[in-house]
Amino acid sequence: MKSLPQDRFVDVPVRVRYAETDRMGIAYHANYFVWFEMGRTEVCRAAGVVYKELEESGYLLMVADLGARYLAPALYDDELLIRTRIGEMGSRTIRFEYELRRGTTLVATGFTRHLYCSNATRRSVRAPEEIRKRFELFAGFEAAARF
Amino acid sequence: MKSLPQDRFVDVPVRVRYAETDRMGIAYHANYFVWFEMGRTEVCRAAGVVYKELEESGYLLMVADLGARYLAPALYDDELLIRTRIGEMGSRTIRFEYELRRGTTLVATGFTRHLYCSNATRRSVRAPEEIRKRFELFAGFEAAARF
Amino acid sequence: MKSLPQDRFVDVPVRVRYAETDRMGIAYHANYFVWFEMGRTEVCRAAGVVYKELEESGYLLMVADLGARYLAPALYDDELLIRTRIGEMGSRTIRFEYELRRGTTLVATGFTRHLYCSNATRRSVRAPEEIRKRFELFAGFEAAARF
Amino acid sequence: MKSLPQDRFVDVPVRVRYAETDRMGIAYHANYFVWFEMGRTEVCRAAGVVYKELEESGYLLMVADLGARYLAPALYDDELLIRTRIGEMGSRTIRFEYELRRGTTLVATGFTRHLYCSNATRRSVRAPEEIRKRFELFAGFEAAARF
Repeated sequence: MKSLPQDRFVDVPVRVRYAETDRMGIAYHANYFVWFEMGRTEVCRAAGVVYKELEESGYLLMVADLGARYLAPALYDDELLIRTRIGEMGSRTIRFEYELRRGTTLVATGFTRHLYCSNATRRSVRAPEEIRKRFELFAGFEAAARF
Repeated sequence: MKSLPQDRFVDVPVRVRYAETDRMGIAYHANYFVWFEMGRTEVCRAAGVVYKELEESGYLLMVADLGARYLAPALYDDELLIRTRIGEMGSRTIRFEYELRRGTTLVATGFTRHLYCSNATRRSVRAPEEIRKRFELFAGFEAAARF
Repeated sequence: MKSLPQDRFVDVPVRVRYAETDRMGIAYHANYFVWFEMGRTEVCRAAGVVYKELEESGYLLMVADLGARYLAPALYDDELLIRTRIGEMGSRTIRFEYELRRGTTLVATGFTRHLYCSNATRRSVRAPEEIRKRFELFAGFEAAARF
Repeated sequence: MKSLPQDRFVDVPVRVRYAETDRMGIAYHANYFVWFEMGRTEVCRAAGVVYKELEESGYLLMVADLGARYLAPALYDDELLIRTRIGEMGSRTIRFEYELRRGTTLVATGFTRHLYCSNATRRSVRAPEEIRKRFELFAGFEAAARF
């Protein structure tokens, strides 16, 4: 598994919904992972991997583990920016990393690590070559490998 | 379509989760339909129709329309009772009716009406005979039909 | 209570999140009301009523009743349009009406009716004059009343 | 900060709701943290700290960071057991640890770490003495400290 030297974030704006707040008056912590999913979907799309199509071709990216740190509360109606990049890629795994920002304030950071799985068997498989290449190209891995 | 004379509620307790509240300090209105789903699942089970198995046999109950009235707020950590019954049955439809109670307080009422659909085609179909019978028996329709 | 002759929709785009789907492969019915909330928030903003500020000034718009009809499934990654307008206004109530569209397909329709409440007492109150005027002006009520 | 030698789990059953599944046919990963919240609430209650009352007395337990590992999928209608214990306590923090089980299968593990905050200022504060004592007593910290 190689850590990628790139810093290629895809930015997705999101406005905090009333439904996403809790009685503390702030966005409920679990909802951040829904926003992270939005960012992940757009990183995939930017890399030429429409996640819906990846599933239709028989693969799933199942969440293996995740984590987050909460640095500042996100409030109702806040306009946030979800910044997402590919963190690491293995033969069977991919890790996405997230920053959530409101203006210059870092609201949260997080990651999710996924296993490539067969939709049919629900078991871990090697990443399809074509998919892996697209992610690597997008993440700048090949360029970095030249040096 | 016949309205059923029965009054056979199935009661399911639920405790309001923090995640289900919003910044108004009360349970967010959309979440009531998740509780109603819990009640519906248990009415099905009580009638001998495990909904998961119904899906596995090729059928879906897709929501066609729904409604709710909100009478008293539901608060975090409240212990509520979801009371569910079968309201009406047609050849292709089934309607469930719900009451949400906290002690003697009526918190909300609602209904959902569903279409029997084929999982394969996602189109409306007639209710499978065996399923319809179980729901009718449970709802007391046959007994009522005698008079 | 007067029905408004206007047809002034505010349109908000939304992309269906993976989190919003269920094992039927379509968006879960309760989530439509979260999208409707997004539309309602933007109708308020367009009318000059920032809902967050309305709450901060001591008022809440509590949901009194709601309904929806589901006409076509919404799928993961679909780009939908939430069309929202003010339906009716009473001295203590406001009703919002919604259409959910995917291209020319009508996916769902719905409404929510809200009570103006005092945040302090959580009881129903008359709509603040200034707020009511802004909604009326936006909804075209005054223009309509001239004829 | 001291790691607690105890192994005092509180067990809470939960049935997977249809709303909690996604189009992969399994429970969506973010929802696990809602289940963990249910477990945490009951650990607090078992320790004599009704979380709702803690908030009403002016304190919040804000999530500072969290993590989870997903080991086996959770399916619709599954009956799971949320096992929760207090992991670590600091002067201003408390960490809860979770196991999610279906029968003998370990479905997931996770943790959340929380900061004691003042509801008024939303800033980190020292844990109230009485609260800290109850958690310590429950977690077996005092007994352990004697040896």
